Amino acid sequence: MISSFDHRTLGQRVLFGSGSARANIADASAGASRVMVVSSERDARLAAVLTADSAVVRRWTEVAQHVPTELADRARDAAAADDIDLIVSVGGGSATGLAKAIAMTTRVPILAVPTTYAGSEATNVWGLTADSRKTTGVDDGVLPSTVVYDAELFLRLPRALSIASGLNAVAHGIDALWAPGADPLNATLASEAIRLLAAGLRTISADPASLAGREQTLMGAYLAAVSFTSAGSGLHHKICHVLGGAYGLAHAQTHAVLLPHVTAFNASAAPGAGARIAEALDSRTAVRGLEDLYTELDAPRSLRDIGFNESDIPEAARLIIPTVPASNPRRVDTAAIETILRAAWAGTPIREYEQE
Amino acid sequence: MISSFDHRTLGQRVLFGSGSARANIADASAGASRVMVVSSERDARLAAVLTADSAVVRRWTEVAQHVPTELADRARDAAAADDIDLIVSVGGGSATGLAKAIAMTTRVPILAVPTTYAGSEATNVWGLTADSRKTTGVDDGVLPSTVVYDAELFLRLPRALSIASGLNAVAHGIDALWAPGADPLNATLASEAIRLLAAGLRTISADPASLAGREQTLMGAYLAAVSFTSAGSGLHHKICHVLGGAYGLAHAQTHAVLLPHVTAFNASAAPGAGARIAEALDSRTAVRGLEDLYTELDAPRSLRDIGFNESDIPEAARLIIPTVPASNPRRVDTAAIETILRAAWAGTPIREYEQE
Repeated sequence: MISSFDHRTLGQRVLFGSGSARANIADASAGASRVMVVSSERDARLAAVLTADSAVVRRWTEVAQHVPTELADRARDAAAADDIDLIVSVGGGSATGLAKAIAMTTRVPILAVPTTYAGSEATNVWGLTADSRKTTGVDDGVLPSTVVYDAELFLRLPRALSIASGLNAVAHGIDALWAPGADPLNATLASEAIRLLAAGLRTISADPASLAGREQTLMGAYLAAVSFTSAGSGLHHKICHVLGGAYGLAHAQTHAVLLPHVTAFNASAAPGAGARIAEALDSRTAVRGLEDLYTELDAPRSLRDIGFNESDIPEAARLIIPTVPASNPRRVDTAAIETILRAAWAGTPIREYEQE
Repeated sequence: MISSFDHRTLGQRVLFGSGSARANIADASAGASRVMVVSSERDARLAAVLTADSAVVRRWTEVAQHVPTELADRARDAAAADDIDLIVSVGGGSATGLAKAIAMTTRVPILAVPTTYAGSEATNVWGLTADSRKTTGVDDGVLPSTVVYDAELFLRLPRALSIASGLNAVAHGIDALWAPGADPLNATLASEAIRLLAAGLRTISADPASLAGREQTLMGAYLAAVSFTSAGSGLHHKICHVLGGAYGLAHAQTHAVLLPHVTAFNASAAPGAGARIAEALDSRTAVRGLEDLYTELDAPRSLRDIGFNESDIPEAARLIIPTVPASNPRRVDTAAIETILRAAWAGTPIREYEQE
C-alpha cells in the first residue's frame, strides 16, 4: 500500500548541454533587457564570457558563503537602482544564494548557471546570515525559473572537491528517502540520482577530465536536489547543519564524511529506503554499497581530518538532538548521536555496523 | 554522453490518499469561497459527496467527450455569472477537459479529482471540438494547480475498462521514450511509470477490488502522464489520434491495441528506450515483456474487435504519414504504417516481429 502524501512539484525550465552555456543563456535571457550578472570575483571572467550575448546592465562580483545580510542589502540596492528584469547567477552556492536574496525583495526572476554540485538552483529555499546567525526560509519567488547546465564548466573542478561535492549530492538523494516529506515521487527521483552520481563519480575519480562522467554527475546532482527539496531535510542534514554552523566545518566534506554513518544507523530501520539505496548502488546492502563507493573514490572519511575536535562530540550531540526529525525511521538519543559522531570522527569503516 | 535537452517541469501539488478525497478536497479548497463543481450527470452524486465541505456556488453536471465549444461557452458563461474562484472537476477526461476550457478564459485555478487513468490532470494541454474538428493547444493556465488522487474512487471501474485505461497510461510512458522532447528526466519518470503500471495492472486483473493494485496503477498513470506531457506525442499517439478522430474508435482500447505493434516496430531502432522498457517490465526484451503482460491481462488485442474496418487501412496510413514525428527512431513510410495497422487489425502476436 502507498501511504498518503502531499507532494509539490516546483515548476522550472532546465537547459542541459555541454559546451552550450553561452548559447543557452542567450536564448533564455533573450526577453530580458536589463540583466544583472552575479558571480564571485574569481568567476567574473567566466561569467562575462557566458553572458556576452545578454543585455547586461550590471556585473556584481562580490559574493560570500551564507549570504551576509549587509552584502544582500547592497546587492538589492544596486538591482533596484538599475531597474533589472533578470538576474543571471554564475557559480556555486554563494552566487546562487545572493541571487536568491535579490529575487526575494525585487521579485525579479533568476537564471542560474551552477558550477558545483550543491543543487541550490533546484530549491525555493533562501538563506541569510547576520551576526553569525543563519536564517533560512521558503519562497517560490527565489526558485530560479531557468537553470543552464553545462558539464564543461565542471572540468576545472579539482578531483577531490568534485568527489566531496558529488557525495554531498548523494547525501541529498539518500537523506530524501527518510526525510519528513519522503513519498514515492521524490523517492523515484532520489533513486535515479544515486545511481547516476555513483556512476559519474566513479568515472570522474578515474579521470576528472571525463565529460561523460561530469554529465552523469551533474544530472544526478540535479535530480538529488529536486528530490531533497521535495522531501525536506533528514537526520543526515540536521547533523551536518549543526556541525557546519557551530564548528565551521567545510560544507561538502562534512556531508560526505557523515553520510555512510547516518546511512548505517538508519538503513536497518528503513528497509524500503535501504533496498532503494542498495539497488541504486548495485550492491547487496546500502552499507556495503556506500563502503565500496567511498573506498573506490578515496572519499573523505573522518571528521578529524577536516578539523573537528573529539572533545566537542558531547556538546555537538546535545545541539543535534532537538533538530532530529520526528519522522526518522530509527529512534535517536544522545548516545546514538555520540556513537555516530565518534565513528565519523575516527573514520571507522561502516561495514562494522553490520556485524552488530 | 547525455544529449542536450530543454526540459520544463510543470509546478503542481498532488494530494494522494485512499479514502481521503473528501478531506483533501476540503483542505485544498479551503481558501476558495465560490467553487464551481464540474462532473458528468452520472458522477454528480459522487461529486456532491466529495465536495460537501467546500463553498460550492454552482454544480455543473453536463460534460461530453472532446469538449464541444458550444458546451464550453455555456459553462464559461455560468462560471463568469457566478464569479467563481475555484473549479473542482470530478471524473475522467471529459470532466477535466471542460474544467480546462473554463480555466482557459476565466483564469480560475482547477482542483482535479480524476476517476480514470487518462492523465489529463497532469497536462497543460486543452482540447475543444467544433464541427467535428478538434483543436488542441498548450496553456499553463489550464494545468490543474492541485490534483487529489483517491484510489478508492477507482474500485468501481470495471476490470476490462481498468485494463484498457491502464494500458493507455503504459502507452504514455512508452511513447514518451521516443517522443520529440524525450530526455533523461522524463525517461526516469516513464521507466518508473511502466514498472508501477505493469505491477498494478497484474494485481487488478487478478482482483479488481485490490486497493493496493489501484494505488500502484494510479501512481503509475500519474508519472506516465507527467513524462508524456514533458516529452510530447510519439509515433504511437499520432497513429491513435488519427484512428480515433477519423474512425471514431474508443480512446483507451485503441491505444491499448496499438501499443505492442508500435513498440515492436520502434524498439529495435531505439536500443536505449527498448532496454528501459524491458527493464521496467522485468523481461529480456521490450516486445516479450509487453507480450507477456498483454497475455496475462487478457488485454484488447485487435482493431477488428473494436470496430475498425480492414478496408480503411490504406486511407488511415495516408492520413497518419504527415503526423509522424521527425524524431521517430525508425524511418516510417506508408508501407510500414500499413504493416502495423494490418497486424493491429488482426491482433497478430508481436512476438513474431522478433523473428524477422
